[in-house]
Amino acid sequence: MLSPVLVDILRPLTPRGSRPAKTTVGEATPVLALIIKDGHDELGAALGWSGPSGEGGWARMTQGELGRFSGELTPTEVGRHRVVVQAWTDRYAGWRRDVVKRAAAGQDLTVELEVGARHLDHLVQRATSSGSAAGGLRAAAAGLRDGSLTVDARLAAGLRPDAIAAAAALVPDWDLSEAEVALWVDRERAGFSAWYELFPRSYGGFGGVIEELPRLEALGFDVLYLPPIHPIGHTYRKGRNNTLDPEPGDPGSPWAIGSEEGGHDAIHPELGDEADFLELVAAAQRHGMEVALDYALQCSPDHPWVRQHPEWFTRLPDGSIRYAENPPKKYQDIYPIDFWPEDTADRRALWTACREVLVHWVDLGVRIFRVDNPHTKPFAFWEWLIASVQEEHPDVIFLAEAFTDPPRMLALGEIGFTQSYTYFTWRHSRWELEQYLGELASAPSVDTMRPNFWPNTPDILEGVLRDGPLGAFALRFVLASTLTPNYGIFSGFELGENLPASADNTEYWDSEKYQVVKRDYGAQPNLSPLISAVNASRRRHPALRTLRTLRFHGCDNDQLLVYSKTSEGTGTAGGRDIVLVVVNLDPRSPQAGTLDLEIGALGLGDGAPYTAHDELTDTAYSWTGRHPWVYLNPAVGQPAHLLHLRPG
Amino acid sequence: MLSPVLVDILRPLTPRGSRPAKTTVGEATPVLALIIKDGHDELGAALGWSGPSGEGGWARMTQGELGRFSGELTPTEVGRHRVVVQAWTDRYAGWRRDVVKRAAAGQDLTVELEVGARHLDHLVQRATSSGSAAGGLRAAAAGLRDGSLTVDARLAAGLRPDAIAAAAALVPDWDLSEAEVALWVDRERAGFSAWYELFPRSYGGFGGVIEELPRLEALGFDVLYLPPIHPIGHTYRKGRNNTLDPEPGDPGSPWAIGSEEGGHDAIHPELGDEADFLELVAAAQRHGMEVALDYALQCSPDHPWVRQHPEWFTRLPDGSIRYAENPPKKYQDIYPIDFWPEDTADRRALWTACREVLVHWVDLGVRIFRVDNPHTKPFAFWEWLIASVQEEHPDVIFLAEAFTDPPRMLALGEIGFTQSYTYFTWRHSRWELEQYLGELASAPSVDTMRPNFWPNTPDILEGVLRDGPLGAFALRFVLASTLTPNYGIFSGFELGENLPASADNTEYWDSEKYQVVKRDYGAQPNLSPLISAVNASRRRHPALRTLRTLRFHGCDNDQLLVYSKTSEGTGTAGGRDIVLVVVNLDPRSPQAGTLDLEIGALGLGDGAPYTAHDELTDTAYSWTGRHPWVYLNPAVGQPAHLLHLRPG
Repeated sequence: MLSPVLVDILRPLTPRGSRPAKTTVGEATPVLALIIKDGHDELGAALGWSGPSGEGGWARMTQGELGRFSGELTPTEVGRHRVVVQAWTDRYAGWRRDVVKRAAAGQDLTVELEVGARHLDHLVQRATSSGSAAGGLRAAAAGLRDGSLTVDARLAAGLRPDAIAAAAALVPDWDLSEAEVALWVDRERAGFSAWYELFPRSYGGFGGVIEELPRLEALGFDVLYLPPIHPIGHTYRKGRNNTLDPEPGDPGSPWAIGSEEGGHDAIHPELGDEADFLELVAAAQRHGMEVALDYALQCSPDHPWVRQHPEWFTRLPDGSIRYAENPPKKYQDIYPIDFWPEDTADRRALWTACREVLVHWVDLGVRIFRVDNPHTKPFAFWEWLIASVQEEHPDVIFLAEAFTDPPRMLALGEIGFTQSYTYFTWRHSRWELEQYLGELASAPSVDTMRPNFWPNTPDILEGVLRDGPLGAFALRFVLASTLTPNYGIFSGFELGENLPASADNTEYWDSEKYQVVKRDYGAQPNLSPLISAVNASRRRHPALRTLRTLRFHGCDNDQLLVYSKTSEGTGTAGGRDIVLVVVNLDPRSPQAGTLDLEIGALGLGDGAPYTAHDELTDTAYSWTGRHPWVYLNPAVGQPAHLLHLRPG
Repeated sequence: MLSPVLVDILRPLTPRGSRPAKTTVGEATPVLALIIKDGHDELGAALGWSGPSGEGGWARMTQGELGRFSGELTPTEVGRHRVVVQAWTDRYAGWRRDVVKRAAAGQDLTVELEVGARHLDHLVQRATSSGSAAGGLRAAAAGLRDGSLTVDARLAAGLRPDAIAAAAALVPDWDLSEAEVALWVDRERAGFSAWYELFPRSYGGFGGVIEELPRLEALGFDVLYLPPIHPIGHTYRKGRNNTLDPEPGDPGSPWAIGSEEGGHDAIHPELGDEADFLELVAAAQRHGMEVALDYALQCSPDHPWVRQHPEWFTRLPDGSIRYAENPPKKYQDIYPIDFWPEDTADRRALWTACREVLVHWVDLGVRIFRVDNPHTKPFAFWEWLIASVQEEHPDVIFLAEAFTDPPRMLALGEIGFTQSYTYFTWRHSRWELEQYLGELASAPSVDTMRPNFWPNTPDILEGVLRDGPLGAFALRFVLASTLTPNYGIFSGFELGENLPASADNTEYWDSEKYQVVKRDYGAQPNLSPLISAVNASRRRHPALRTLRTLRFHGCDNDQLLVYSKTSEGTGTAGGRDIVLVVVNLDPRSPQAGTLDLEIGALGLGDGAPYTAHDELTDTAYSWTGRHPWVYLNPAVGQPAHLLHLRPG
């Protein structure tokens, strides 16, 4: 469309711009556009959005500096949305601006009054056709033309009522121009989830897991993630502690998927059968949880696909299949799939088979998948798979387990992954955390990939956790669960399990990957009370459901990390919900410091006192000004303040 | 194209990405791409370019960190180019990397040698079809398979010759994927020009200007820019010093274009006729200069268009035409054109008429236009006009005289303007200059708009020039002419004319816009020797022809601005051409300082001595290390060092 107004949408956009950005139902999502025109006219702008069934809205955008207009949308349905920014020349606003200057300079306004009236006439026509009330505009035009009044009174009729200017500003007018981007909207849990990972075999199978559900519900988790539940290969099966000579009865790694008993669509007989699995899914639902499965596209040498489809694997000149390697390391219990076999028909068959496996579990009621190592399979495969599954089931969530370089992690988010594992596990100092979160919470990252913070996994025991006391687990838990809305822990975390495989190995000794582990979750001390309290606070506070409003604050002690989150119109009495978190990054010693809060940005800037209520200790502090003093002692089980701030 | 390799071109790109970026014939132009693939394969990449007649080239790209590949192209013809980046999986390189690790670990390589030989077989086929020599590759494959050799010798055959690896790396191989962008290539003068602006009427018309040409040639200018040469309106004609009551004989502002004697395609009779103009164009050419005209789309009330096409202007309710205003200021001698009349046919007629005016002057041999206030006419108009003129005449250069906000200045470059006036005129401190130039010399700005630095214009007398001695003019001249490859001055600058219209007005008193000005260009002292020396140095040094390699260096005195430019393969003995400039920003006092040169980046980093030859004083300094000491005294006419650096 040829128009004098140029509109470019700057947000929401992914880095490549060609794929839809992401948000969540109910999430206030910023829209930013660069809108420019030649000359000195005033511009108006509005944004509109609509979802697959037509649900959507329309909102005025606010003009900032240098042609930047901003607005916000909050979607109400799942699926692909259109976001449109419209901009136009607001001739009435330009006339209004100039006529004030002309009047101040004492110029003759006779002609100008008629010019203004004609702008209003035009708006009346537009307002009528767009359904807005045109009465005020018509009255103002009549006033401008009323020869029985003084010039000042006529002018006032056309200028005074701000309501008229506001009504006029809402009518898309001359030179209408627009730009459009796509936006993918996920369901709420895609943007707000607390994951708990456990190996069902350590609980005797699905039945035993069902018995754990009340405990997990009390802890406040809402996603129960199970490592692969499929039959496990026996060729080159790994023994305890990743050894190559298993003892009889060693169960093997669940990621060595497939045996004579079946592949990715089968269930390991020792866990239960399909009926047992369905019972677990249903029981989890009753306890407010969803079951998430592992989607790990690789095969043990005993997987049915190896015999049925040797063309899906890389063959060596001697006819054997190439096993997984990171030269010179060998992983003979795993055959990687070749996702790009030379024959296009083979590729189609393979990709379709991978999709069928996923749809099999979707049909059994699973809607969340943790995807193992997606960065070792083609981006094009994921883009196709996720789009094709979400077309039918837009509620399916994919968590990318990719610990790789930033451009590839971002690309996985861009091509469709719902959530992403991150480097949080390796970020420990205040500087590292501020820098990394600053990146994740900014555009385009925050519009492209949703971080899911894991302080540990079955494979990763890192940083302060390795030789830390239970307080180290406590502080990492508070960080993971309050810095981002999505986080998870692996069973045993609450007990502070921290025996490393060796001094230079970040895996666990006696790792549950290779053996059954029995735990006493009632052992003391443990972090269950802290976990319950934080998860309850997460549910109470809309501010903790978003990453977009994350803001770091100053403190004169580098061992204290200070950050806030806010949510508009959702707090006490419909006001702003404000949460402030102060974490002691030192798990061994008490730390104190004077904060430097940006209270203006928090909406507490008028010098009046405000209350900081610690949700972990149920203690209320009455603060004034930007420099409260805090003290946190890990020895008494206080890793952090989780403060709800409110005026008064 | 479906491929496992993702290719995204990051440079050359304009901010919107949808319009071609810019470069110049002969200009080394960086290309940057993000190229990623799943897994751990090695990737190869190459860039290709081709112009309208098929001239172009092909070059290997170099892998940097995090999936970034860089390369460079140097176009040889004018016009729209295609730039293609191809990327592929280099299986041989991956095999080579891994087999070294396998060999070091003492693994059995029998099968691996055959794997490598097959990769080479494949490359032989590809190399043959793409014309590269395949002999070395074939020999290497045979060596890998030679059972009469030891395994080590066979391996060496496939690995040792780096030439083989290099040849293999040049063959686009498996998973070929590509991306493409458009690039607009201008002729050399678009990227390297020295402008001199003068009012022909002050020299008695075109004949008098011809007499000035030898002087301007001696000064080293190559563009002679004339303000509008058209008939000037008499209605509301401005008198001297912008007064509203002209005396009889006052010539008026040349920007009040049009009278009974004609409009934009006519010549003011007092300057000469068309034959005289053609003579000036030809004479300028003989003196190594091009004539640039002003393209100012506005009309005096006496312009023929006002009578012939009242629909091209804004009509007020009383039937009159709205004159130019910046309320409450009135410019009654100017009628702005309404570029977007309501009737589409009117718009088409108007835009076509504006194009015809331009083509009229192009047909008379003019190829450079300084465009007056383009930011007050629609972007869509310029995009159409420039594209349609350059389609037939790709050598036409458009300089945008837009002093407006950065997003609009950048947008004008993006939609086609060849060069842009800038904020240089208002940037004076070291910090301001470093910050502003850092922005202009970085992507996407440097790929989008070409700055043309003017220390003054007929309307602008700013900063240090306002009350400065001649040395102020000297230092601003050196900055303008060496910071960017395009710059210009307005006649009188060389004499240090600096009488402001008033204390708070940045225009000149007795401005040449409103009256004839006679000058004695031989008056002493003046800057002619400096100007000649700098322009000669600009022509000698390829380094001064580009903005892309600008680099600022440290100095312990903030009054000294230190920067370098380099050009590869163009300096002494075909090496790197290196120019270092040190400017004393203080026009009144001598300043000394110790530099902190990034000599490594300049290619002088091995601790050996190097020579710094000052092209302004013909003095040579022998320096060693990164901390030479400099002293500049404006009292003896030394505003700057303009140093040619070379090893030895």
